Amino acid sequence: MTGTGNLPTKFGLLLYPGFEVLDVFGPLEALNVISRKDFLEISPVFIENVSLSIIAEKLEPVSPGKPGMVGSSLAQKIIPEYTLENAPNLDVLLVPGGMGSSDVPDVVIQWLQNIFPNLQYLITVCTGADLAARAGLLNGLRATTNKMAWKSITSKQTSHKTYWVADARWVKGSTKVWTTSGVSAGTDGFIAWIEEVYGADLATNACTWMEYIRDSKPECDPFSKGLHDVPPTET
Amino acid sequence: MTGTGNLPTKFGLLLYPGFEVLDVFGPLEALNVISRKDFLEISPVFIENVSLSIIAEKLEPVSPGKPGMVGSSLAQKIIPEYTLENAPNLDVLLVPGGMGSSDVPDVVIQWLQNIFPNLQYLITVCTGADLAARAGLLNGLRATTNKMAWKSITSKQTSHKTYWVADARWVKGSTKVWTTSGVSAGTDGFIAWIEEVYGADLATNACTWMEYIRDSKPECDPFSKGLHDVPPTET
Repeated sequence: MTGTGNLPTKFGLLLYPGFEVLDVFGPLEALNVISRKDFLEISPVFIENVSLSIIAEKLEPVSPGKPGMVGSSLAQKIIPEYTLENAPNLDVLLVPGGMGSSDVPDVVIQWLQNIFPNLQYLITVCTGADLAARAGLLNGLRATTNKMAWKSITSKQTSHKTYWVADARWVKGSTKVWTTSGVSAGTDGFIAWIEEVYGADLATNACTWMEYIRDSKPECDPFSKGLHDVPPTET
Repeated sequence: MTGTGNLPTKFGLLLYPGFEVLDVFGPLEALNVISRKDFLEISPVFIENVSLSIIAEKLEPVSPGKPGMVGSSLAQKIIPEYTLENAPNLDVLLVPGGMGSSDVPDVVIQWLQNIFPNLQYLITVCTGADLAARAGLLNGLRATTNKMAWKSITSKQTSHKTYWVADARWVKGSTKVWTTSGVSAGTDGFIAWIEEVYGADLATNACTWMEYIRDSKPECDPFSKGLHDVPPTET
């Protein structure tokens, strides 16, 4: 598989302080695997010429912790290589969630709006859906998000044009826009996206490499108990 | 839960070029969650005063990719804060696997040997078990490792004193030494370790936060097909 034609090869990851690490590195694990040449040990094909651009508001190491926090997460620092100003053209953008998602400034939301028309795919994980909703990119679509943050996110004024689906591990809201439920649901949703875009064999082989027992049923979510769908209301 | 007494609070992560990202960030996701104060939203307790020290041979950003590789993984760069020389005392050391594990130099193995007596717990993920085996830390113990690298790792001369268990998602080889199977098995093994050390409620609540459907059966491994246990042989 050469990755030419319409198959996406140019991936981007949006990082911000307070992102959730598994939101990011579950999907990236799968991306790393399918774009590595040694994947050919178990797969007839790999995705050639994949690039990943890590993008943040500032060119400073980004931590899943926030200043003033205690715990382990402040020690983890990821280096971004692009800012909003110089990010390259992308086929696919991955937007993670995390406790910092509610602090993401408007300039990042405007950047999402600006680049969205040129994307082939937008994939949000967890409360990353809130950023897409703020940017209006979920208007008129079915979507899902983190189940512990369900009420706060789905009740927002800016989200009222979205049909929020509670009982979903992930939702393909359109060909272009995929949203997943919280944290580890991002891995399952991203592998489902791989299956749709690159084929079932590649997804299965990636799981074998990752020794990953995937959840392949998007409509079942063991973490949605007591939550309900939030249909859109025009405002 | 105060984390005083014998409960471990000082965590270390050993990084090296070519580590596998999910080996690291599956367990760290769980560690981040149980050490965050907002975990109290769903848990009666969190683990206070947790520190995480990221340790590498050199104080340079560490990538899951290796020079000359193609693909996405070169873009991911994690900043270590300690070298082998100035790493602080640790209660728990996490050793990930990855394609770079076979290139880890002897100086790192010697460091593992040196710090091991002062650890409360050593947890290896994937081919991280090979580093522990090289250091002799699995001698006389049951252990497991990545299933695609099974034959190359379990046939090594240095590993002959280990009883390698094929049909295992993870193995508690002793109170102190835990080894897991490949990549995503590390998350399940680490959550099982949390359960044993901090209690079942904390482990369950961490899974709820992570929206993680855990595999709680250590003795079943869907990826061990065709592989066999390798009993120890004294050399």
